[in-house]
Amino acid sequence: MRLRHKPWAKEKIEEHPQYVIPNPEYYHGRWNELFENNNPVHIEVGTGKGRFVTEMARANPDVNYIGIELQESVIVSALDRLIEAELSNVKLLHTNGEDLRTFFAKGDVDRVYLNFSDPWPKKRHEKRRLTFESFLKLYEDVLVDEGEIHFKTDNRGLFEYSLGSFSRYGMLLQYVSLDLHNSEFAGNIMTEYEEKFSAKGQPIYRCEVKYQSMVTADV
Amino acid sequence: MRLRHKPWAKEKIEEHPQYVIPNPEYYHGRWNELFENNNPVHIEVGTGKGRFVTEMARANPDVNYIGIELQESVIVSALDRLIEAELSNVKLLHTNGEDLRTFFAKGDVDRVYLNFSDPWPKKRHEKRRLTFESFLKLYEDVLVDEGEIHFKTDNRGLFEYSLGSFSRYGMLLQYVSLDLHNSEFAGNIMTEYEEKFSAKGQPIYRCEVKYQSMVTADV
Repeated sequence: MRLRHKPWAKEKIEEHPQYVIPNPEYYHGRWNELFENNNPVHIEVGTGKGRFVTEMARANPDVNYIGIELQESVIVSALDRLIEAELSNVKLLHTNGEDLRTFFAKGDVDRVYLNFSDPWPKKRHEKRRLTFESFLKLYEDVLVDEGEIHFKTDNRGLFEYSLGSFSRYGMLLQYVSLDLHNSEFAGNIMTEYEEKFSAKGQPIYRCEVKYQSMVTADV
Repeated sequence: MRLRHKPWAKEKIEEHPQYVIPNPEYYHGRWNELFENNNPVHIEVGTGKGRFVTEMARANPDVNYIGIELQESVIVSALDRLIEAELSNVKLLHTNGEDLRTFFAKGDVDRVYLNFSDPWPKKRHEKRRLTFESFLKLYEDVLVDEGEIHFKTDNRGLFEYSLGSFSRYGMLLQYVSLDLHNSEFAGNIMTEYEEKFSAKGQPIYRCEVKYQSMVTADV
């Protein structure tokens, strides 16, 4: 995404600590205190302008959503949405997805969403892809046992790569759609990017994968 | 495929026992006797008119190929190809794929090819899909340890289903292409069907999956 510099963004973020949590490390292991309930927590890594996470929160009041976005000039757009939406079950973290362990204890998160992540197509950038092995380990370290990743992208190369990466990690591929908008999947909430690019006829790829508990083999 | 009745087919097949093996159960556990070498054996389940298996045999003289096809009126076309090709490393079996265990012992087969298999789109026909669990068990029973299935299709539903089925079976997804003809994969040999349908712009899906040896977990 091309970024426009917004000098006022930092200040605006700081003015809304009820939406962009300023001290997420405080909630490590106790996000229920922030949300004041024990509902499941779903996070979106790379939440962009926040449409997905806001609309999911609206549609699913019994789930708590946290959108994580590093870019200051982007997360302010998500903040605008949250201010307008007036929902108590969605928050933002202005931070790097790589720091998840700082904010979440094992089991704090029930599901991870990855939507239209940067494909990093060059082989030498493989480690930056959000479905690279080290990220799968990262998500596992904060997810409940048998937690899930729900992933969608329009990038064929990233999707092909990710299916292999999930498989090598021993994850269970549960649902795959190779053309989401022409599938039976109900309740899809489009991201800003998704709406723009699917209008060009590009198929959207989607899958749900699940971490598997260690199986003790007979010896 | 629409089938034309060919009353002379049965006779023609019987006249060419050097190509369409009349007694495959005899070679159970000793296909090297038939091929007179110890090269790996790759089978194609549902070989149709035989173009894939014949051209693969021509391109890979150090591999033995066996095409399996139940339909009499179709396998005669494959037979014509073999007669013309004059290759010693490709044979046909006029039989049902479900009978593999009758002809192959565990380890007789090094690789299974599934090309443009019947998608059986209705849920109630799931068990007939060649990537259904019972078929994956069947292939495993004749393959070497860590044997592979190479699968391609233009049918989106079948491919989506199959990725899930491979994963549930615990197989490792090694390579995935969601648009084979616009990928880096070299050496693709097209089936008759593939050439016809890809000309319409339909993407061809392909993957390679591998059976995994039982891992003994630490206890």
